Amino acid sequence: MTSWGKRDEMIVHERDPFNAEAPPGVLVEEFVTPVSTFYSRNHGPIPELDPDAWSLRVDGAVSRPLTLTLAQLQAFDHVTVTATLQCAGNRRADLIKVQDIPGEDPWGRGATSTAEWTGARLGDVLDAAGLDPAPGAGHVAFDAPDVSQLADPPQPYGGSVPLAKARGPEVLLAWAMNGAPLTQAHGAPVRVVVPGYIGARSVKWVQRLTVQPEPSDNYFQATAYRIVPPDVDPTQAGPGDGISLGPVVVNAAILAPFDGSRLPAGRTDISGYAYVGGDRTVARVDLSTDGGSTWVQADLGRRTDRWAWTLWSTSVDLAGGPHTLLVRAWDDAGAQQPESPASLWNPKGYANTSWDRVEIVVDAA
Amino acid sequence: MTSWGKRDEMIVHERDPFNAEAPPGVLVEEFVTPVSTFYSRNHGPIPELDPDAWSLRVDGAVSRPLTLTLAQLQAFDHVTVTATLQCAGNRRADLIKVQDIPGEDPWGRGATSTAEWTGARLGDVLDAAGLDPAPGAGHVAFDAPDVSQLADPPQPYGGSVPLAKARGPEVLLAWAMNGAPLTQAHGAPVRVVVPGYIGARSVKWVQRLTVQPEPSDNYFQATAYRIVPPDVDPTQAGPGDGISLGPVVVNAAILAPFDGSRLPAGRTDISGYAYVGGDRTVARVDLSTDGGSTWVQADLGRRTDRWAWTLWSTSVDLAGGPHTLLVRAWDDAGAQQPESPASLWNPKGYANTSWDRVEIVVDAA
Repeated sequence: MTSWGKRDEMIVHERDPFNAEAPPGVLVEEFVTPVSTFYSRNHGPIPELDPDAWSLRVDGAVSRPLTLTLAQLQAFDHVTVTATLQCAGNRRADLIKVQDIPGEDPWGRGATSTAEWTGARLGDVLDAAGLDPAPGAGHVAFDAPDVSQLADPPQPYGGSVPLAKARGPEVLLAWAMNGAPLTQAHGAPVRVVVPGYIGARSVKWVQRLTVQPEPSDNYFQATAYRIVPPDVDPTQAGPGDGISLGPVVVNAAILAPFDGSRLPAGRTDISGYAYVGGDRTVARVDLSTDGGSTWVQADLGRRTDRWAWTLWSTSVDLAGGPHTLLVRAWDDAGAQQPESPASLWNPKGYANTSWDRVEIVVDAA
Repeated sequence: MTSWGKRDEMIVHERDPFNAEAPPGVLVEEFVTPVSTFYSRNHGPIPELDPDAWSLRVDGAVSRPLTLTLAQLQAFDHVTVTATLQCAGNRRADLIKVQDIPGEDPWGRGATSTAEWTGARLGDVLDAAGLDPAPGAGHVAFDAPDVSQLADPPQPYGGSVPLAKARGPEVLLAWAMNGAPLTQAHGAPVRVVVPGYIGARSVKWVQRLTVQPEPSDNYFQATAYRIVPPDVDPTQAGPGDGISLGPVVVNAAILAPFDGSRLPAGRTDISGYAYVGGDRTVARVDLSTDGGSTWVQADLGRRTDRWAWTLWSTSVDLAGGPHTLLVRAWDDAGAQQPESPASLWNPKGYANTSWDRVEIVVDAA
């Protein structure tokens, strides 16, 4: 184990803040990602909170502001949702190959993982607080205690989601992950889980929910996690600038074989994930072994979990020599992915949804 | 005027059924498209209905099935929504350049138009019928009297939308378009208008609404309007096959200058539309004059209408000689368009959302 309960194989981009992802071969092994393999994305030191001292404040445009202890939160209905989280920086490494993105981690395909989250519905807690359906209730802001030096001046992490999303039955205040209490690194004692939205909105160590007219003014909502045009300074972005990321756009990755592999002659098994958030689902995954001239449809695996990724697989006969594998997914609205990372490059390196590409060499038979 | 109240300039793909679109230069002139310029997409002969004899049957999973006359429908609250409709075959011509699509019209950029629709909310009518929120209520099917020979055997046109969409305040049973009663060609006396969905779901001459567990089994819902893989026979598609189209994916087109134009030296004004349906909005429009190496952000025009297109414009200085103009749009989730029509080719030629491309020649100064 490396630090924070993670497997030795993890690719650690930074130790402080702790940012790590599983290599593709480990990630593809299971539909539900073990906690030891689940990516970690942090913006500051991981706080250690005493569950007995923890409380959640619920205020803003509500008629009955609340302060809930962990026991009081756990008195709400318990709900388990199998959901994928995906970092907005997932697959940034391929954007960096187009043009450098200083100061941001070169995430590969592994800043995406799936867990069984258990907690109370955020909507139930809001109802208990007497949600006021007045114009003052447009967003729910989340505040956490982990102070980030990425903001200037440094500030605790936070974010928000639109109220309509916050009330979705899939949005949780979770205390357990894969059937066990949350680990410290994953937000113990309680975190927000917003399935279908970029991971940044699933705020860990949450301490306060505020119902308010506008999105959070926290740095990580107002300035970071925005797609701005290539010539814009992202540190100067603010409300109204660029595209503030929320629902995750359709994406896919090849997890096996690995980029640069040498494979024996014979049939080659190929597998990976596809994922889309918002109100959409993955409809089809195509694989090409000839640079995109022709495509075969991959087999889609377990499809029972509305908020989880689709693990796909196929196998192909490849002649001896070098090959390029390409994968692309379609969602149920008919959206498909842009071909190249160059088309998507942006100054902070978010939302690389281009076709994934893996180069392999197959031995002669 | 050509037939059906359309301008002489319309590009008529077929006279029976009547299928016509405005040339780009006409379409770009106004935010709200005049009826004489609005595209016409039909699957059979245009019926002539007597408004005094017309009625709307509302049945299925409702507790109080209704039959409404036009006067009874017009007794509901009147609502006006400015909404764009877009044919799923819009921009098919560029897919046909990749590989022929026999039996389908080669729509250009003009199978998209915007109108001010006035009618009753579909949701209000469903409420009056005592909508039963039981498992039997998943979709609302629309039936019309226009018989299409495209189905085998021929059948009247129909379709459906999910109940959650049908209840949206933007979905209308409309009797007026741009402040005047619907024309015969646009569905008089009453049509469905489903903003954000492919035009095929905005069923004209509607006579019956049925609340039912599954999507409509009409040919145009169950078989047509699906993206199937290139090697699949689309006439054999059915429920569960391919991607059944509903919410419109982000798209953009250059309307001026026209493809193949010769332009005088000096500053070149460029304009067009961008559009996305579902729950998304257009966030940014980029124009390239160097084949996609660099992009400028176009100015976005009137943005007050949630369900309408965005008309964008910019102007550039171009040296004398040939130039390729490219446009692409981003939606507010960060989705952007695939680069090439080849990536999107499908047997029925739907949903060409690739970057639009216009070739021009600028005179030497």
